[in-house]
Amino acid sequence: MSNEALIKDFEAIVGKGNVMADEADVHSYSYDSAVLDPVHPAMAVRPTSTEQLGRVVAVCFEHGLPMTVRGAGSNLSGGTIPKKGGIVILTNALTKILEINEADMYARVEPGVVTAKFATEVAKRGLFYPPDPGSQAVSTLGGNVAENAGGLRGLKYGVTKDYVMGVDFFDSCGQLVKAGSRTVKCVTGYNLGALMVASEGTLGVFSEITLKLIPPAQSACSMMAVFDDVIHATESVAAIIAAKIVPATLELMDNFTIRTVENFRKAGLPTEAEALLLIEVDGHPAQVEQDAKVVEEICKANHAQSVDVAQNAAQRDKVWQARRDALPALANLKPTCVLEDATVPRSKIPAMMAAIKDIAKRFDLTIGTFGHAGDGNLHPTILTDKRNKEEWERVEKAVDAIFDDALKLGGTLSGEHGIGLAKSKYMEKETTRATIEYSRKMKAALDPKGILNPGKMIG
Amino acid sequence: MSNEALIKDFEAIVGKGNVMADEADVHSYSYDSAVLDPVHPAMAVRPTSTEQLGRVVAVCFEHGLPMTVRGAGSNLSGGTIPKKGGIVILTNALTKILEINEADMYARVEPGVVTAKFATEVAKRGLFYPPDPGSQAVSTLGGNVAENAGGLRGLKYGVTKDYVMGVDFFDSCGQLVKAGSRTVKCVTGYNLGALMVASEGTLGVFSEITLKLIPPAQSACSMMAVFDDVIHATESVAAIIAAKIVPATLELMDNFTIRTVENFRKAGLPTEAEALLLIEVDGHPAQVEQDAKVVEEICKANHAQSVDVAQNAAQRDKVWQARRDALPALANLKPTCVLEDATVPRSKIPAMMAAIKDIAKRFDLTIGTFGHAGDGNLHPTILTDKRNKEEWERVEKAVDAIFDDALKLGGTLSGEHGIGLAKSKYMEKETTRATIEYSRKMKAALDPKGILNPGKMIG
Repeated sequence: MSNEALIKDFEAIVGKGNVMADEADVHSYSYDSAVLDPVHPAMAVRPTSTEQLGRVVAVCFEHGLPMTVRGAGSNLSGGTIPKKGGIVILTNALTKILEINEADMYARVEPGVVTAKFATEVAKRGLFYPPDPGSQAVSTLGGNVAENAGGLRGLKYGVTKDYVMGVDFFDSCGQLVKAGSRTVKCVTGYNLGALMVASEGTLGVFSEITLKLIPPAQSACSMMAVFDDVIHATESVAAIIAAKIVPATLELMDNFTIRTVENFRKAGLPTEAEALLLIEVDGHPAQVEQDAKVVEEICKANHAQSVDVAQNAAQRDKVWQARRDALPALANLKPTCVLEDATVPRSKIPAMMAAIKDIAKRFDLTIGTFGHAGDGNLHPTILTDKRNKEEWERVEKAVDAIFDDALKLGGTLSGEHGIGLAKSKYMEKETTRATIEYSRKMKAALDPKGILNPGKMIG
Repeated sequence: MSNEALIKDFEAIVGKGNVMADEADVHSYSYDSAVLDPVHPAMAVRPTSTEQLGRVVAVCFEHGLPMTVRGAGSNLSGGTIPKKGGIVILTNALTKILEINEADMYARVEPGVVTAKFATEVAKRGLFYPPDPGSQAVSTLGGNVAENAGGLRGLKYGVTKDYVMGVDFFDSCGQLVKAGSRTVKCVTGYNLGALMVASEGTLGVFSEITLKLIPPAQSACSMMAVFDDVIHATESVAAIIAAKIVPATLELMDNFTIRTVENFRKAGLPTEAEALLLIEVDGHPAQVEQDAKVVEEICKANHAQSVDVAQNAAQRDKVWQARRDALPALANLKPTCVLEDATVPRSKIPAMMAAIKDIAKRFDLTIGTFGHAGDGNLHPTILTDKRNKEEWERVEKAVDAIFDDALKLGGTLSGEHGIGLAKSKYMEKETTRATIEYSRKMKAALDPKGILNPGKMIG
């Protein structure tokens, strides 16, 4: 079928302005936030209702067209790159919050709802949606579910998967599958809603997501602890957990990141510090007071040079602005910024920090490391220039080495960025051949034409 | 292949005492805790290591033998009945707790570990494993994962699925698949660990489970609120949640259940009460004190006749012993006890209680209702005698009516007991045809010979 005829078919479903096939358009949808080569789709289609979405999927099935669903394109592993061309389906017109149910503490949303906007609406009703991926200002809930997005609050509050109660989705031929429910407990049929989580768009096209909400903490306290040795910082992390305190956030920044952030925004960070811990405890005021006190004592016992407790909202914001600045500040330094995502059991954070330092030295690279120390999810960030071939080869070797070390420490290839195109070749290192085969059989059965975001995760 | 030859094959793997094919043996493994007709397996095989388990699976695959894995047989939906005969695989020799990691707050276990024993071992290390299904004294963790077992703490702490970090399992031909990890965050590959949850043994045979642990609450307070009207009790439940209090447990017992429990064990329950709420709040002592006060006020504002706050461990035990007695006390009354599991969004509990009362009247049946009011998971329990054909027909109609009403209220067929054999014919009422087809395609691809617990869930 010609592109022109296809455009007509899609226009009949979604209307004239919502099929985009110009060169500029297809270029816009050829890449995402991963450092990977772009691939142009044939066109992008923008359904304005989930009913239209189902019909678009059915047309793709009929013609055997690959379809890659795109939310904000903030994916860091190439999940939204249309590897085999075909159709990019945009969800940015599917932005209805269908229901926020305060009595039963759940919400139903269309896939294109922006994460931060949703969290704000939920907060207005006195409830809390915890997952806060770094891209939350633009990322969509559909994308968050497809990638099982994490964020700063993973340690205490879990990640996206912990809030998915149900997903309605179109199978590859456009039939509606309903999984999960609005109840706290549900064991009706296979756990297909959970299977959709982290499936990277390869098993179905989401039409509606039901998310769990919780009451917000009554109070919180933010702290910044300054260390002259990364080991002391990471040992503090272990000691805090050992004391049975589960902070809402427990973030680490190394010296290179601190200096870069301070250079980016003069916020008065201690640029001589070897490491910072940014900590927030929350809960009942009495609990917060008690936890904050213990955290401060632990940090000091582990040789913190200072522990600053935020006394007001402005001081609290300063702490978290510094953390939010980490990635943009690092990305500003060099043309290419490779943001890695290796994750280890949190007790192995000291070993992993040492390994990253060693890798930076061995491959003569600049690596700034920050991340979610509390849940073992570090983001070693390699600053480079992809056009420098010799250096790029060293970067690739360093990435391999990071994965190997993380796995050796009982960790995982990816904590929250997904496998996508970027890491599919590493899958077998962590799992087994049988795991890949099992996954492939499942994928082949559920997507017999191989058109749901082909080429991702399992190749 | 003859049974004798098969016995020899299995004995070569698991040893002589661990293959059981006598009439008494096969009868023992022909039923579980559901009210369903027994089906005899050809034999039961008891591996004593996971390596043996994998070899047993491989032999079953080779000969196309159906295999039904059995933990304690406490399943309430027929999940452990070997519907198509074949081999029952016992996990009661796979009882190793492989690791309890305090620093990283996870545990690794073999599938045959008994839930309560595990929880006790975890508590000894100062940690907490919350899922507490009614059968926890005998049920196994493998069974809990296969059924996504719930319990009393679902409201605040979630159910088994919320604690499964990873599952290693044998696929239908005996190859080892590894899913999930020991880290808080992991997005490496499909969420196969979560897919195993509630899959009722139809997609793989578990060899090792990694479970999340959390720090225990510092303190707790138990209360018993007495009502002269079920509606007042259920409205109290809604008001407690609306006040943003999430009790650890929030249980309801109706008058029939109260009287039956009191008759069973003279515990001084108020037999004139139309309903009891049994409530436990936990957390930081200051939080507990505050929550308990608010809960008491809410119950009183909703016309509670009295609210007794347990002042010591003995009084607390009395409250929860009464709740634990509910099922055995009811089951004692009549030869057949049909324990239902319909679940609704919690705000619909008053409507569901009214519907159950109406159904009992309409079909002239004795129904005692108790359950997890806080998470909308009620257990209407029909007392009958299956040998009375005429009455049994009314029971079946009443069960249909309970499902219909739960679904009308936005609920689900099963909160925590599974679909198994008992409810597979109802699946389409809640989902869609496409959901069943999607599930069947997946099952067929992952179990091409149809030997993994055949006949369950999707027929």
